[in-house]
Amino acid sequence: MEVDELVRGVLARERRSVARAISAVEDGDADLESLSAGLYPRTGAAVTIGLTGAPGVGKSTLAAGLVGAARTRDLPVAVLAVDPTSPYTGGALLGDRVRMQEHATDPGVFIRSMATRGHLGGMALAAPEAVRILDAAGYERVVVETVGVGQAEVDVAAATDTAVVVLAPGLGDAVQMAKAGILEVADIFVVNKADRDGAPEVVRELRQMLHLGAARDWDPPVLTASASQGEGIEELWEAIESHRDHLAASGALAAKRRSRLIREVESLAAERFRLRAAEALRADPQLADELEARRLDPYRAAAMLASRAAE
Amino acid sequence: MEVDELVRGVLARERRSVARAISAVEDGDADLESLSAGLYPRTGAAVTIGLTGAPGVGKSTLAAGLVGAARTRDLPVAVLAVDPTSPYTGGALLGDRVRMQEHATDPGVFIRSMATRGHLGGMALAAPEAVRILDAAGYERVVVETVGVGQAEVDVAAATDTAVVVLAPGLGDAVQMAKAGILEVADIFVVNKADRDGAPEVVRELRQMLHLGAARDWDPPVLTASASQGEGIEELWEAIESHRDHLAASGALAAKRRSRLIREVESLAAERFRLRAAEALRADPQLADELEARRLDPYRAAAMLASRAAE
Repeated sequence: MEVDELVRGVLARERRSVARAISAVEDGDADLESLSAGLYPRTGAAVTIGLTGAPGVGKSTLAAGLVGAARTRDLPVAVLAVDPTSPYTGGALLGDRVRMQEHATDPGVFIRSMATRGHLGGMALAAPEAVRILDAAGYERVVVETVGVGQAEVDVAAATDTAVVVLAPGLGDAVQMAKAGILEVADIFVVNKADRDGAPEVVRELRQMLHLGAARDWDPPVLTASASQGEGIEELWEAIESHRDHLAASGALAAKRRSRLIREVESLAAERFRLRAAEALRADPQLADELEARRLDPYRAAAMLASRAAE
Repeated sequence: MEVDELVRGVLARERRSVARAISAVEDGDADLESLSAGLYPRTGAAVTIGLTGAPGVGKSTLAAGLVGAARTRDLPVAVLAVDPTSPYTGGALLGDRVRMQEHATDPGVFIRSMATRGHLGGMALAAPEAVRILDAAGYERVVVETVGVGQAEVDVAAATDTAVVVLAPGLGDAVQMAKAGILEVADIFVVNKADRDGAPEVVRELRQMLHLGAARDWDPPVLTASASQGEGIEELWEAIESHRDHLAASGALAAKRRSRLIREVESLAAERFRLRAAEALRADPQLADELEARRLDPYRAAAMLASRAAE
């Protein structure tokens, strides 16, 4: 009953309902499945954009710029900043959101930091669910900003229609980016803080790295920006729209979304099973003892658990 | 038969066998389970050390320093640099390993970059398995260096006895570190490149952030180093040994390792199940169609898959 109300609130794009729904995702709420079932038929219209890059490159400022660009075009837009939980702050940090304040009273803008406190499967599964809520709420552009620049963050950014990788002079060179597996997922590169020393070198180095890769259907453009001065935002917006058009025209958009969905469902199924395996392990502390005493190895223990949990 | 030989070779600390065994982990080799079963009883002696931090802070140089410190004490030591696969390089990059070259002919040193090409569950499950191989081979110190600074990398670093977080002036401040969830997992902090401008500020900022956290059993020290000049390495070594002694004395070491093992086995069981779920999904393309057409939501699809795969 309460879930029905929440579904209605989200579909009507009521700010409080959208916020509550995302909190339900963060907490891994018991109502999440019925909420998801209620919203899912109304998703699919949003264009999703991932923003990833090392701390300090200016992702939040670029996100604020994209919000402005969307609003100029009268498009409802949401920003989801995916943070891991930190016990030091009790969740998300406020610093970056200050830059978003000019949009705080605009009903066409929704900005939210998101931690994963209890969601099964962490960030990788919580983020797409939160994006679907924003999609169902009618935000036509959803920007997913990740904090950190590791495998999990790359995976989250890659689970969008258009993945934008942000760099800045002095903050990790292209070789380091390649090592973090970040170059392959990018549809668009932005070298931000382009007014700083070293920016042309970052652009050049990046183009060289890209040149080494296999030829692709879409050549990721390398853009420059000074987001804090508002420079380069329009070009980024246009590049995102071109990429989306390219995907739609080639049929790749539907294929990309379908395979994303399949992977997500597999992961959800595996996470359900993990809970059952954890239960089976709790029910049999002797198994953990055997493991600890090294009389039973991890693979054999996992196989035993798997067959018990499947019973 | 071949696996038996490989097990013997690893236990005898033959470099080629150790290298082949780690490749088997990377590839998710069919023989991996029997290899693991053969080696597991001989593990548990190694002290494992995680090194994590943003690209460019000098983790590899610190790792090389720790190798030197171990060899001065005549301890066999291994370094495992955990990289995601990059199609641009076909695996690991060589750059950082150049710094390790002085140890290349020392039989008491093993250095290896590791990608995860086919291992079930990726880096989070492949890294501990590779560490066990090095442990069984008699490397008394195993340094796990991660590339990138996101959730997955933090998880890998946290799955060691002593997690060292490395920072450097100008490469992400403490607030950014907190956002990446990195402060909580650290047992020791090192501010590297301490001869550069801004280093005292990083130390101060870090100490302030730590001060905000809850009181803990172990107060993570904040050290400084100039690893490329060999400064601060001995202090880091001593801090790592003190932390290990502290863990051992309080009984926390055994508890930490046990809970790590339990989580790992749960994940292995879940990954086995993921394969079965993926198979069930392939066997029923209609389910994916229903999902795509939004007649079936992801949670319900996962529940259906879970019950089918358990059959």
